[in-house]
Amino acid sequence: MSATTTSSVPVPATDAAHAPEPDVVELVNSRARAAREASRALAAATRAQKDEALVAIGAALLTHSESILAANAQDLRRGEESGTSAPLLDRLRLDLGRIEGLRDALEELAALPDPIGEVIRGQNLPNGLRLRQLRVPLGVVGVIYEARPNVSVDIAGIGLKSGNAVLLRGGSAAASTNAELIRVIRETLSLHGLPADAVQTVDDGGRPAARAMMTAVGLIDLLVPRGGHGLIQDVVQNSRVPVVQTGEGNVHLYLDADASAERSIPIAINAKVQRPSVCNAAETLLVHADAAETGAAVMRALAKEGVTLHADQRSAAWVPEVETVPATEVDWITEYGDLNMAVRVVDTLQDALEHIRSYSTGHTEAIITDSVSSQRAFIAGVDSAAVIVNASTRFTDGGQLGLGAEVGISTQKMHARGPMGLAELTTTQWIVEGDGHVRS
Amino acid sequence: MSATTTSSVPVPATDAAHAPEPDVVELVNSRARAAREASRALAAATRAQKDEALVAIGAALLTHSESILAANAQDLRRGEESGTSAPLLDRLRLDLGRIEGLRDALEELAALPDPIGEVIRGQNLPNGLRLRQLRVPLGVVGVIYEARPNVSVDIAGIGLKSGNAVLLRGGSAAASTNAELIRVIRETLSLHGLPADAVQTVDDGGRPAARAMMTAVGLIDLLVPRGGHGLIQDVVQNSRVPVVQTGEGNVHLYLDADASAERSIPIAINAKVQRPSVCNAAETLLVHADAAETGAAVMRALAKEGVTLHADQRSAAWVPEVETVPATEVDWITEYGDLNMAVRVVDTLQDALEHIRSYSTGHTEAIITDSVSSQRAFIAGVDSAAVIVNASTRFTDGGQLGLGAEVGISTQKMHARGPMGLAELTTTQWIVEGDGHVRS
Repeated sequence: MSATTTSSVPVPATDAAHAPEPDVVELVNSRARAAREASRALAAATRAQKDEALVAIGAALLTHSESILAANAQDLRRGEESGTSAPLLDRLRLDLGRIEGLRDALEELAALPDPIGEVIRGQNLPNGLRLRQLRVPLGVVGVIYEARPNVSVDIAGIGLKSGNAVLLRGGSAAASTNAELIRVIRETLSLHGLPADAVQTVDDGGRPAARAMMTAVGLIDLLVPRGGHGLIQDVVQNSRVPVVQTGEGNVHLYLDADASAERSIPIAINAKVQRPSVCNAAETLLVHADAAETGAAVMRALAKEGVTLHADQRSAAWVPEVETVPATEVDWITEYGDLNMAVRVVDTLQDALEHIRSYSTGHTEAIITDSVSSQRAFIAGVDSAAVIVNASTRFTDGGQLGLGAEVGISTQKMHARGPMGLAELTTTQWIVEGDGHVRS
Repeated sequence: MSATTTSSVPVPATDAAHAPEPDVVELVNSRARAAREASRALAAATRAQKDEALVAIGAALLTHSESILAANAQDLRRGEESGTSAPLLDRLRLDLGRIEGLRDALEELAALPDPIGEVIRGQNLPNGLRLRQLRVPLGVVGVIYEARPNVSVDIAGIGLKSGNAVLLRGGSAAASTNAELIRVIRETLSLHGLPADAVQTVDDGGRPAARAMMTAVGLIDLLVPRGGHGLIQDVVQNSRVPVVQTGEGNVHLYLDADASAERSIPIAINAKVQRPSVCNAAETLLVHADAAETGAAVMRALAKEGVTLHADQRSAAWVPEVETVPATEVDWITEYGDLNMAVRVVDTLQDALEHIRSYSTGHTEAIITDSVSSQRAFIAGVDSAAVIVNASTRFTDGGQLGLGAEVGISTQKMHARGPMGLAELTTTQWIVEGDGHVRS
């Protein structure tokens, strides 16, 4: 089954799930090979070409908003018929305002510096060799994600800007919308002299296509899973293609002995309540035993905001008037993603660090303190992607940290850690220029 | 079987190979946990502490040279009895001069800048948040290597300098030497207030210990295989711990249309003949059809140096007086590692790039040309860790490129590419400092 044949006879995702595995493997591999070919042209494209194409794609999404919204209406209807929950339907829904948002994001991307060609290190060696280390694209990036059509446009844009071809496997619930978005993107790329195959979907391969991406060693350079815990763990555990693990956040907020209620309450509320479902929202509150008064005030404030506190015995005793749930070991490892929060009292900053090291997913940990020694010890003792001092955990975000667009927040140590932006979608290449040099 | 019990009752490697798997897993895991604990102290150590310890280890190796050479004599005797080849015995052999070489390397390492704490990026954000991205150690690095006792000292030193604890699994042929070297290193660390468990061997776990390292997810942060193709592929394909793939080099030297014999001959000889067994030695010579005269001269010069040329029909016809072997597809993919070399004529630079992309392992490719356009096209078209212009391929080496000590040459795109030195054994951490900041 060649890519061309498949494209001309679209297979509904539900049928394709039962397609013989070898056909899907061949479908994914042939598209990855076409993506590799396209990635070469993309790597050689100038910044001006890429930025013009990004702006043009934004404009084309609006020009084609009618067909995009019609495709989206089909997905929404299918979702409603199959009893999809209201929040999921909301994530699936596009409207003119949201398409304008996608266009704005593409224009912001165009305004960011081009990571490709950046000289990271370089020097003239004693023997006269000239040495440079350059940023170059990875090549082909695969992304497996859930039913959020905006991700298709985001990733296509980030891939284009960083010179990478992308292979997309979106959730089948958004299949019609994704197909139309990707059709518009590919058409615009062609109109701007860039290869359409730089952006491809394997949605028509159904669920087996995700599995086939995980085994496309040598064809896909990097696979990024975006979605819930199940999806991420499936990819991390089964992929033979390199993976960057993103977005699992069992995030801690620690109130040190001297933390004031005045500073701690707004930060705790912002960290927990502003957007509880995202990965940088706080999940556990650790309080130094000497900060009992502040701890109690923060607990009362959180409860008033509707947060259910899973409190250990000591912290529960601080607020007898607040209804709390007794905390168990399970609470320490839980990323609630909603208005629940674990609370634990610790006797020392070292105990807080011990708790964090035992239960954290390595995303973000925050401390509230005015002690220089505590700040220093906390930064030195935390082994997570981000350490935040006297501010909300919600700042661990590419946009908030001034890094621009991001693919996700990496919680692993290899290759990329923290917000994964354009630079993190590159690798490097050493260029050595001589004049007949041989090694002695 | 706890680490302590095992240490006090050393198990010969040959017996341990038959030990029940769960015991070996527990042995490796418990040492990895001790290494994690030690890595925290190491991460907090000052540069002065680390450098003093490096110098002291170098001195201690000489102080204990008698016991080290006695252990080495045991390994050599065992090797001779079991019919080990002369080159392997040579790699296994230590003498006073080689121990002095190890000490010198440790002193050079001490002189290199400390990668830890380096601020890679940083800025004050518009809202007043202060942002820094710092280099921090990975944590625990595992290395699986063959019977070269110098690797044990090299890796312990590189690990110490970069703030990482190391878990070593060396070849069983060097078990006695490694045990004594590691004993001396651990003793010296303790004497200098650093944790002995920052350097540990799992050699007493035998072959299953290597397998156990590959499954120690969350306990070992990075696994580096150093050795032949079989070892590397075994680790790359079976490890669930992140791996950096190093040292496979199917390296190409391309003579462009205008390449002169004067410049090409010394470079070709240096690239192929100086040290044929290493990964940056050239394996295939590609020659532009218009450079027939230069190509013939280079082939004659290589043949004179004892190189057997596996030539395609066109290049063989250039040198009827030289005895060549007809090249087949197999020659294009072979990393000979000895005085054999493939030769192929290409009609264009693009054909050369096509050949390289099809058969290269992504290590190093060199071009000889005086054409600016050719240089530009070659750099843009090669997707390997290093591109070398008008110089020998043998320069792809951490020491030669002024990067200092290296763990190996990474041929992968993720995390590290090319010579893998101290910086490549680190990850980064974002530090965000606020003054009560919340996200709006």
